Amino acid sequence: MNILGIDTATRVCSVAVTRDGAVLGEVNIDAGTTHSQKLLLAMEQALRQAGLGKEEIDLVGVSMGPGSFTGLRIGLATAEAFAYARKQPLHGVDTLMALACNCREEGRLLSPIIDAQKGNYYQALYRWQAGELCCLAPTEIVNVEKLLERIQGRECLLLGECGKLKDLPGNIEVAEDEIRMPLARSICYLSQRDYNREQDQRIFGLEPYYIRRSEAEELWERLHP
Amino acid sequence: MNILGIDTATRVCSVAVTRDGAVLGEVNIDAGTTHSQKLLLAMEQALRQAGLGKEEIDLVGVSMGPGSFTGLRIGLATAEAFAYARKQPLHGVDTLMALACNCREEGRLLSPIIDAQKGNYYQALYRWQAGELCCLAPTEIVNVEKLLERIQGRECLLLGECGKLKDLPGNIEVAEDEIRMPLARSICYLSQRDYNREQDQRIFGLEPYYIRRSEAEELWERLHP
Repeated sequence: MNILGIDTATRVCSVAVTRDGAVLGEVNIDAGTTHSQKLLLAMEQALRQAGLGKEEIDLVGVSMGPGSFTGLRIGLATAEAFAYARKQPLHGVDTLMALACNCREEGRLLSPIIDAQKGNYYQALYRWQAGELCCLAPTEIVNVEKLLERIQGRECLLLGECGKLKDLPGNIEVAEDEIRMPLARSICYLSQRDYNREQDQRIFGLEPYYIRRSEAEELWERLHP
Repeated sequence: MNILGIDTATRVCSVAVTRDGAVLGEVNIDAGTTHSQKLLLAMEQALRQAGLGKEEIDLVGVSMGPGSFTGLRIGLATAEAFAYARKQPLHGVDTLMALACNCREEGRLLSPIIDAQKGNYYQALYRWQAGELCCLAPTEIVNVEKLLERIQGRECLLLGECGKLKDLPGNIEVAEDEIRMPLARSICYLSQRDYNREQDQRIFGLEPYYIRRSEAEELWERLHP
């Protein structure tokens, strides 16, 4: 199965093309707030790397959050329209779970996080066991104190939006740059694993899971009642 | 030529399908801030009304603003991805000019406006003369006083986001509901008129022209430097 994966939950715009688990192409761009300008171009480049035409994609996978309001909206709108236009199925993937797939080290405690603003983070805990990704603690919004508390002093690899976290205790390591931020190959991986032909019929009106209600959106709705 | 037109510049989500000027299908939804949930469905419905398959569309037209930040982003992302996925050309249309096409009354002074927040409006002046749409005054951001001043006491039909304007002078009439807000048939009309096979090659990275820099975006960039 050929999968096109898209992750725009953070300032990274990542697009990958995989075939049965093999990464044929991947483009990662630090897009900042300009996902809308860069995503289609990244799709085009990833497909070219993969040597695949758009018509050869069997499934579109897309990161559903938690993450940034605008990024997720643009990513989902693009993925939906692409899937709709080409009559391909669409599969939504949890951004934190995808981050945990960036590091497939057996037995290692993984804590993917996404900045939830105001000193808070979305956090979940995962571990690869016998080749399976196990969720040890579900996604919660936590402050830094609680974030560390959930790790309970264990050796742990932090992935995701860790940039603001300073003076971390010795048991916590921040993932190296190559795997720290979202990689669309992980969106492809989880789409391949979880796509269900019967359940994933819905393309229209999927809702991303963005930062609480983003301050930007709250402001927006206040201005446009 | 079969054209799919999309306008999400305001709280109205409008999609139309035309063939050589004839409106084959049109769906207009008051989407509020939920364009992302309703646009694809509206596309599907408009195509069904038109009795056309996605593969029969020759050109995608999309409203480029001025208008709401989120609406325009979603509309453009969707139009781009659809055009990209189906290898169709994309044509961007000025939202105010499209509003002026909602009323094709020969000789009548038309003033399409879009709310620019803080008591300001995007405004332009148009008139149909000998079957041609003439721009009498280009788009400017103006306060209400200046908006009226530009009309110079002439009989004028106001189109667009007029909701907040009260106690208008007698020379100004607000368009009836059927034609007041954006209609994607007008996007199709102008796309048909202006599409240039040589110039409109660019699908990637078109930038909508939204409300100044929206407050939502300014906040966003402040939070994500």
